[in-house]
Amino acid sequence: MAEIGPNTRLKVSPFYKSTLAEGVAGFSPYNRMLMPVSYGDLAAEYARLTKGVSQWDVAVERQVQLKGPDAVRLAQILSVRDLSGLTENKGKYVPMCDHRGTLINDPVVLQLDDDLIWYSIADKDILMWARCVAAERGLNVELSEPDVSPLAVQGPKAELVMASVFGDWVKDLKYFWFKQTELMGIPLVVARSGYSKQGGFELYLMDGTRGDELWNIVKEAGKPWDIGPGSPNPVERIESGLLSFGGDTDDQTNPFEVRLGHYVDLDLDDDVIGIAALRRIASEGVRRHQLGIVLEGPEPKEGHWVWYDILSDGRKVGDMTNGVWSSRMGRTIGFALVSRELSPGAEVVVAKDGEEVAAKLCELPFY
Amino acid sequence: MAEIGPNTRLKVSPFYKSTLAEGVAGFSPYNRMLMPVSYGDLAAEYARLTKGVSQWDVAVERQVQLKGPDAVRLAQILSVRDLSGLTENKGKYVPMCDHRGTLINDPVVLQLDDDLIWYSIADKDILMWARCVAAERGLNVELSEPDVSPLAVQGPKAELVMASVFGDWVKDLKYFWFKQTELMGIPLVVARSGYSKQGGFELYLMDGTRGDELWNIVKEAGKPWDIGPGSPNPVERIESGLLSFGGDTDDQTNPFEVRLGHYVDLDLDDDVIGIAALRRIASEGVRRHQLGIVLEGPEPKEGHWVWYDILSDGRKVGDMTNGVWSSRMGRTIGFALVSRELSPGAEVVVAKDGEEVAAKLCELPFY
Repeated sequence: MAEIGPNTRLKVSPFYKSTLAEGVAGFSPYNRMLMPVSYGDLAAEYARLTKGVSQWDVAVERQVQLKGPDAVRLAQILSVRDLSGLTENKGKYVPMCDHRGTLINDPVVLQLDDDLIWYSIADKDILMWARCVAAERGLNVELSEPDVSPLAVQGPKAELVMASVFGDWVKDLKYFWFKQTELMGIPLVVARSGYSKQGGFELYLMDGTRGDELWNIVKEAGKPWDIGPGSPNPVERIESGLLSFGGDTDDQTNPFEVRLGHYVDLDLDDDVIGIAALRRIASEGVRRHQLGIVLEGPEPKEGHWVWYDILSDGRKVGDMTNGVWSSRMGRTIGFALVSRELSPGAEVVVAKDGEEVAAKLCELPFY
Repeated sequence: MAEIGPNTRLKVSPFYKSTLAEGVAGFSPYNRMLMPVSYGDLAAEYARLTKGVSQWDVAVERQVQLKGPDAVRLAQILSVRDLSGLTENKGKYVPMCDHRGTLINDPVVLQLDDDLIWYSIADKDILMWARCVAAERGLNVELSEPDVSPLAVQGPKAELVMASVFGDWVKDLKYFWFKQTELMGIPLVVARSGYSKQGGFELYLMDGTRGDELWNIVKEAGKPWDIGPGSPNPVERIESGLLSFGGDTDDQTNPFEVRLGHYVDLDLDDDVIGIAALRRIASEGVRRHQLGIVLEGPEPKEGHWVWYDILSDGRKVGDMTNGVWSSRMGRTIGFALVSRELSPGAEVVVAKDGEEVAAKLCELPFY
């Protein structure tokens, strides 16, 4: 393993000093920032997330801000899901595609005002994309990356912590709903959201100078519930069937292939980028689909497997896009992006550095 | 320092195993790949580059391939430099801008055939950008990232090594000129190019399965000249005044601000992205310009400084975008992106974590 640290292309988050103080042990670059991915004890982090509560520096979930008279129009052009129901305080998860119908992001979209929208994005330069579309179509909208950095509070006890901080109104937030508020004068958007299936909230910090302050408020408030640091957890998210854009998708993946078809509205206008291509794909049928995969054998030495070939009768039929050891299942499990010929139950082989590992496809999620 | 390694968002290069064998000590993410940035002895790497010859894994310089009847037309639309003289075997360095006239890349453009062009890019998702433009304008061109990975051979003795491998014809290549060829059956483009001012070549490997083979051929051929591993060198490139796109530029930087004005052709057609904005900027005059900066004081503990405020009379007047200790000069030197009010010779202050360091602006390059 080689080292990584902040550099001119890797900005640090407003919570950076706090994560160092918590003993962050590994980073991954994401949206040109350093994302904590480990605090050195992944089993403890998994336990906190699935049984208790954990707090995550997910400042890397950057916002692409659309502001101006054409903000709402541009938002729809960029999204293959119908946004006509979008209102203030109710966010939506939306697939974004390019003109080929290929997935380029899966943000949460938040409308903050009549003319103000945030795309809370996964890892890809959507600011540049949105600027290109707006300029090419002559839209009157200003695009920027505002000073907004989410801190996630995740786990079954997250609601208790958040209610102790903000009051009981947080319990009434439905999934992806949000509220603009303040905490000790720190401007925030509080949303029920987060990259796990354990439930939780995201606090969108709107003043980058106050990250450590916010981190410590949450840390103090969480003490009765043994809160601790964590990060998007590869084991939990695979067990839960949660897609990783860019991790489980490639340069050819459309939403139908990765279980996002129910977020695609094919009757949207043709000016929505990708919708015409998706109509064609829907009528022709997809070539691949995403399933679960369970591997034979004991816990491997490496914790995390990525993009290994899946073979059937000696022929490549797809990729295991991500795989992890699940202690809960006593097996290596993962996501398979495989030919439509293969169904759950099919026995396949994963080819890993010359070795072949027996495996079986299954439905998602695992839990 | 935390660790980094290959993951689902960080692909490895075809030379990865070779760089591990050479003892690579640090990586930086760049174009979604791991770029070696150190082999543990930066002084030796600097000496090889400036006095001998070194070989670099710069597979991160990805190619964006434009293929089809509208490839040449799209290439011009994407470039604010006149490409009308572009021919096979003669590459050009070109600034790319967005519609605001803001720099989004500074690739080398190579025309390989009448309908086939590569943009050899710096760190930014230009494939997505080019796809957006092509689709919005209805151009008949296929965009892709081909299996092409450059290996750089840099330093005053690079020509001797390359001539020993390929023959004397390499000596006739002028800067950015190139030739498609083969070496032991490995398909290559050989160009006089590279991210240093020490002279050298880039071998564009066109078969990713043969990276270690190519690495070792160059390593063997270079032995008489004590070749060794290296990487784009922050000290050499700052001494030489070489711009780092994304390192010395921000989300507002136009080509005129960073000494690229002579690569901008303002009389290009309006359909060239950014040219209308650049005409406006040129007539109004830029607010900032890029100068060198020399700091007082001894060698700092950290080797590399990025984006510190530059103050004049207690007021922020710009940023020191990158700074390094130059043993040759016995000073910390860097690039300053400062208000046009300030000229070479101006005495300023660099504000670094609460400390203030006296400094003086100067012309570029340092050597």
